[in-house]
Amino acid sequence: MNRSLSLRAKKTGGSGPDAGSGRRFGFASMRASTQPELSKKLYRLIKSENHVISNYTNAGREQISIASQLSDWGLSTNDDAISDISDKIGVMLSELGEQDITYAQNLEDFRTVLKSIRNVEASVQPSRDKRARVTDDIQRLKYKEPQSPKLVLLEQELVRAEAENLVAEAQLSNVTRQKLKEAYAAHFAAVVERSQKQEILAKHARRLLSLLDDTPVVPGDARPAYDLERDARQILADAEEDLRNWTLELEEVPTNAQLDANAMPSVSAGNSPVTETHPQQATLHGTGEEAPKPELVV
Amino acid sequence: MNRSLSLRAKKTGGSGPDAGSGRRFGFASMRASTQPELSKKLYRLIKSENHVISNYTNAGREQISIASQLSDWGLSTNDDAISDISDKIGVMLSELGEQDITYAQNLEDFRTVLKSIRNVEASVQPSRDKRARVTDDIQRLKYKEPQSPKLVLLEQELVRAEAENLVAEAQLSNVTRQKLKEAYAAHFAAVVERSQKQEILAKHARRLLSLLDDTPVVPGDARPAYDLERDARQILADAEEDLRNWTLELEEVPTNAQLDANAMPSVSAGNSPVTETHPQQATLHGTGEEAPKPELVV
Repeated sequence: MNRSLSLRAKKTGGSGPDAGSGRRFGFASMRASTQPELSKKLYRLIKSENHVISNYTNAGREQISIASQLSDWGLSTNDDAISDISDKIGVMLSELGEQDITYAQNLEDFRTVLKSIRNVEASVQPSRDKRARVTDDIQRLKYKEPQSPKLVLLEQELVRAEAENLVAEAQLSNVTRQKLKEAYAAHFAAVVERSQKQEILAKHARRLLSLLDDTPVVPGDARPAYDLERDARQILADAEEDLRNWTLELEEVPTNAQLDANAMPSVSAGNSPVTETHPQQATLHGTGEEAPKPELVV
Repeated sequence: MNRSLSLRAKKTGGSGPDAGSGRRFGFASMRASTQPELSKKLYRLIKSENHVISNYTNAGREQISIASQLSDWGLSTNDDAISDISDKIGVMLSELGEQDITYAQNLEDFRTVLKSIRNVEASVQPSRDKRARVTDDIQRLKYKEPQSPKLVLLEQELVRAEAENLVAEAQLSNVTRQKLKEAYAAHFAAVVERSQKQEILAKHARRLLSLLDDTPVVPGDARPAYDLERDARQILADAEEDLRNWTLELEEVPTNAQLDANAMPSVSAGNSPVTETHPQQATLHGTGEEAPKPELVV
């Protein structure tokens, strides 16, 4: 990891972030252009994640196919030792492939969690747009018709738009932080799961290789008969046992996110320090109104 | 791993070994059909391995691209905490991607070792063919012209062909066992390396997530200022340090393969039990001739 500690600093140094991925154009980017500005970046990221997922799925499937090919090849050598070991190595390779497929499925779940951030972003955009539009209208009218009675109505509309936007921004912040932690905590947990299981498999697979006597023979020499089928089967059984006993042990990623259906602090979080130290909780700055809590479209 | 302990038994149970891989036809299979029979299976397996490798390479590259996209997105949220954490998470994702690319490169090396088995298989085929052809010729002539003087010549030719084939088969057996162990020992070592490094990265990445306060806020509330940049940078430094200190510690896969350039037991292996217990080492069964040791085309 002898690279920059920030990806942003790195970008000035040459190869762009999209290097190696030629997917910025085409239908996906057309559809991205119909997304609200706020959710475009995450929309694209979630699309890209799809490619990662299908690469792992394909790698896993191909690995499972290779496992069978190896076993077939071993059988065709008419060498009992190679035949048995290659078949058992095939079982291990096949399981390694299954683990990659499971990893891809876990990434699919992670991707779904990311989507909930993207959806809130998309739903918050109209509130920002409305506030900006009313502000613009007021500026324009003040310049063209400073005495217009419509100004009072617009100022009142702005107060309402600002209130709505305050709620929207709080929802966005709450959901983004909660889901970002949740999504990547799951992502990295999946990495740990795949890593630990594949390490178990690979180490036992190397034990299998030890059973294959590679002492060279001279022409006409017969190899000693192979009688290690039981040992080989025991290694598979050991690997299976280790996988069965495996549990995911990780340090918790602590969370304080207790959101209600409106992406606001839930009632059960009433004893959290945040609600205690902010007595203006239920009122909006400058309005004196009760904070509206519209249903959040996610 | 609650599946059969043999891939061969499994095949009778439904989905074939090539399920999910539609690459049996096309140019690759045409080229495969020009391969000697003996090396066809391994030829195809080595081809398939290419697909595994490119899937991991693509997954890694896409992951690095996503890392940058995440960092960009974080910056655009105008939230200092999200911006810093997403950038650092991006560094971790990028490194995870690099590990997949390294893994793919290691598989490329493994693939090269497998090729040396395939090449010996291909070079041994003519010897089998020749022996079979001379045997056929003798049978045919015995039936048609039992008194033909050509029979004596053919019988002599057969002895030579058998001698040549004995050498070829010994070479094949020696190279196959040696390289099979070497190739898969390297393959599984690469799995362990990727697993351990990615586990290190993922665990530190989860620590980064802990720095993101996801306590929900109510509308109008300001979040406390983010002041954990140093902690976040320290986590990256910790991960970097752990990767730097990482070494591959694996139980050895023992090998007795000491081959000379002719794929025969090398002279330095003279004290191995095999050469001691097989005094007929240098002579071929039934020929009395010195074993020819032709240069092996690998």
